[in-house]
Amino acid sequence: MTGQIADALGVRLIGDPMVPVSHIASVDNAGPQSITFVTGSRYLDALQQCQASAVIVPESLADRTSIVRLVSNDPYLCYARLTRFWVENSFPVSGGSVHSSATVHESAKLSSSAVIGANVTIESNAVIEDGVQIGAGSFIGSGVHIGAKTTLHPNVTLMHKVVTGEKCEIHSGAVLGADGFGWAPTSAGWEKIYQLGGVVLGDRVSVGACTTIDRGALDDTVLADGVILDNQIQVAHNVSIGENTAIAGCTGIAGSTKIGRNCRIGGAVSIVGHLSICDNVVVTANSFVNRSIKNPGSYSSGFPLEESAQWRKNAVRLHKLDEYVRGLSGKKN
Amino acid sequence: MTGQIADALGVRLIGDPMVPVSHIASVDNAGPQSITFVTGSRYLDALQQCQASAVIVPESLADRTSIVRLVSNDPYLCYARLTRFWVENSFPVSGGSVHSSATVHESAKLSSSAVIGANVTIESNAVIEDGVQIGAGSFIGSGVHIGAKTTLHPNVTLMHKVVTGEKCEIHSGAVLGADGFGWAPTSAGWEKIYQLGGVVLGDRVSVGACTTIDRGALDDTVLADGVILDNQIQVAHNVSIGENTAIAGCTGIAGSTKIGRNCRIGGAVSIVGHLSICDNVVVTANSFVNRSIKNPGSYSSGFPLEESAQWRKNAVRLHKLDEYVRGLSGKKN
Amino acid sequence: MTGQIADALGVRLIGDPMVPVSHIASVDNAGPQSITFVTGSRYLDALQQCQASAVIVPESLADRTSIVRLVSNDPYLCYARLTRFWVENSFPVSGGSVHSSATVHESAKLSSSAVIGANVTIESNAVIEDGVQIGAGSFIGSGVHIGAKTTLHPNVTLMHKVVTGEKCEIHSGAVLGADGFGWAPTSAGWEKIYQLGGVVLGDRVSVGACTTIDRGALDDTVLADGVILDNQIQVAHNVSIGENTAIAGCTGIAGSTKIGRNCRIGGAVSIVGHLSICDNVVVTANSFVNRSIKNPGSYSSGFPLEESAQWRKNAVRLHKLDEYVRGLSGKKN
Repeated sequence: MTGQIADALGVRLIGDPMVPVSHIASVDNAGPQSITFVTGSRYLDALQQCQASAVIVPESLADRTSIVRLVSNDPYLCYARLTRFWVENSFPVSGGSVHSSATVHESAKLSSSAVIGANVTIESNAVIEDGVQIGAGSFIGSGVHIGAKTTLHPNVTLMHKVVTGEKCEIHSGAVLGADGFGWAPTSAGWEKIYQLGGVVLGDRVSVGACTTIDRGALDDTVLADGVILDNQIQVAHNVSIGENTAIAGCTGIAGSTKIGRNCRIGGAVSIVGHLSICDNVVVTANSFVNRSIKNPGSYSSGFPLEESAQWRKNAVRLHKLDEYVRGLSGKKN
Repeated sequence: MTGQIADALGVRLIGDPMVPVSHIASVDNAGPQSITFVTGSRYLDALQQCQASAVIVPESLADRTSIVRLVSNDPYLCYARLTRFWVENSFPVSGGSVHSSATVHESAKLSSSAVIGANVTIESNAVIEDGVQIGAGSFIGSGVHIGAKTTLHPNVTLMHKVVTGEKCEIHSGAVLGADGFGWAPTSAGWEKIYQLGGVVLGDRVSVGACTTIDRGALDDTVLADGVILDNQIQVAHNVSIGENTAIAGCTGIAGSTKIGRNCRIGGAVSIVGHLSICDNVVVTANSFVNRSIKNPGSYSSGFPLEESAQWRKNAVRLHKLDEYVRGLSGKKN
Repeated sequence: MTGQIADALGVRLIGDPMVPVSHIASVDNAGPQSITFVTGSRYLDALQQCQASAVIVPESLADRTSIVRLVSNDPYLCYARLTRFWVENSFPVSGGSVHSSATVHESAKLSSSAVIGANVTIESNAVIEDGVQIGAGSFIGSGVHIGAKTTLHPNVTLMHKVVTGEKCEIHSGAVLGADGFGWAPTSAGWEKIYQLGGVVLGDRVSVGACTTIDRGALDDTVLADGVILDNQIQVAHNVSIGENTAIAGCTGIAGSTKIGRNCRIGGAVSIVGHLSICDNVVVTANSFVNRSIKNPGSYSSGFPLEESAQWRKNAVRLHKLDEYVRGLSGKKN
């Protein structure tokens, strides 16, 4: 009921608190019994045509609809909290349990409130704190420590000695603590450098599906509190990522690079190794970060899309760009 | 025997139908007891030197060899069908079975003809239709619906409420229905937007190894009938992909982008979010799609390869390209 | 004790062989009871301030410290061997065992010295040689052959008929032998070409986490002895990679491309299909390899990073590069 939702989210309600809602919808798709949200006046038309039973609105739109409304300073954040409220009410976590098919080493320490799924393997000396959930088929290596209220979805792999903080979330297919790519060249081929460091996640770190975070060579690979990683990201050994930095899918970060706090790295970015990126940097999608970044701001690279025929012509010219520029007036070069 | 194959494929045979074949080979590697194919006259030399016992040829080459031949209007398609015939005869699917180590929730509905592998987990209210095969170690979440004759290879993860059509194939390591990357910024860090939509696959959709398809935020992520995805592709939340579109490996598609029908997207393409790509578009490998595409055709981007020394010179010039062009005659700019 | 280490590594010790060491550290972080290494004179200051109990040094620095030292012609290689010695002493492999939860087909042949983890599935006619270790949750398909002393970490998938040499290492989430992306176009959509080839790894091949190597269409996908692959690499069907070639993370190699020996391919490189790359080629990170490479050397491509505002200007100019060059003196074009 709308009144309960407003109470749970701590926002002001205008209208009948008994109006029922059965699902959350985007403003364009909102029908009867749905609750939706609008973030500002550019959605005014949508708001006025909306069939929803309830809507989250900013103060500025509080009087522009007759739908039951929840008034928030930040409707998008209020919507985020609504989704959380919704999930927590839809999928209540039951008390602790260990599935009968799980394999748990006798030296592992499991909180009685942890929920361990089917076919999970937990090795020696692992520590699983209160309220942790581990999805089916996940592997927890020797000496791993999983902080309270952390969730691992099914088929996650945490190799030995990986440490997570509290309230982390790790999606399926992710692999934390695989060996970093360290090799010494010899006349007979590559000699493996065994990787002796760990992986340490702070609190509230989110790791996407099929993302990989390698263990450090000697020291640890470190993700600070609040770091959020999308899917299919590669974090190489000894990388560090500062608080609340967000990284979109398919980005790769080579070894020993240090990324600051509150950065936003787009998708499919390639970052070479041994760089430093300062706090508050934005890197747009598909960029190639081939140097350190010392000043906050937005950075980009990448050849934008064009018709293939035109691209082929331009690409040929690009090969000779240096030559062309040399041919221009010597004064500028 | 060659005659049986010709019958199964519905093509005309010239030569002895009793000639035995034991394997399929490329025309260059075809030895005795093999069957091979050639698609046109540019393989005429290869055909005439070929040691195969049987060959699929187009009408135009039907008289250019004395090998036993299967004559087809489309030899490549005929070869595709031959591979299917071969596999179906080599690996006949036995009747339905559930491996004793599988964990199946009592509320899940399994067809008696489904084959469920070792250590599979199937959660509440999942529906598994006729002839489905689920490989070892796969996870099937609550409320998942898998259409008839769909195959999941080992170690696939389908999170809750994912829906597949009929005759889909999902390769190992793929993760469907992980959370989309939705976050609201706050002064204290990122607030998760719980993802309430689903993932819906049409019929005959193929998903490659370690490909990830996220669930939608509120609405669904949708792949239409006949979509084929290679390995290590990332499909973000609320993407839609139209019928028979093919996407090669390592491509990433950001959130809410709509891709039309019959498109061919190359490997390692990055597509930013909230774009529309119309039907019948080709995007070549390694392109960066940073704008919507409204007209069918072929599109490209990307800096082509050169020697590193030359690249470094050109790259330096590229940084100042705008400045150089401004220095040219004002008439063109 | 330092003396035992020197003996194990076969290097000269200067100082007290009874000095104990408890861990390996980088020279900057080395404290008491640690052993570290320096590779040359640029670390001389660090060496002289170092608190380590022991250090690996080159001959040229053998007299520049009073710390107990191991003198090596190649300190980096000596360090690599030290890490191996350390791991082999820290994690001794016990005798062969098959976990009670593993599912092993009666026709599979397992060496008595193989170690098979929890929830592993091994199908018909697989052969597992001496000293192989298979991590929890891994899947070993029908007819797979795993060479002696090969290690599979948890949650690896080897589909049917994959063959590995000896002393290979395959990290978690890797998938070998998924179907290559082979499809024949028809008027009704894509017709699958069933993939009948295999995947063959030589000896000492390393495969990173979530890396995928597809089976060949008719012939095999082949990685020669000593090839090392980092995480999240895609190797398409019928690729071949020559001895001791190293490939960094997130690189994709399209079908039928042949890569020579002793190449070093950087991270996030895209290599199109049906190319040949000769021996001893270096490709730098983020390059787009869109043509064959016939001569050894270093190759690059990629638009280097700049501030977004500058990039937007340059990108606009790039679209018209051909036009600008045509406008320049006709002599050069």
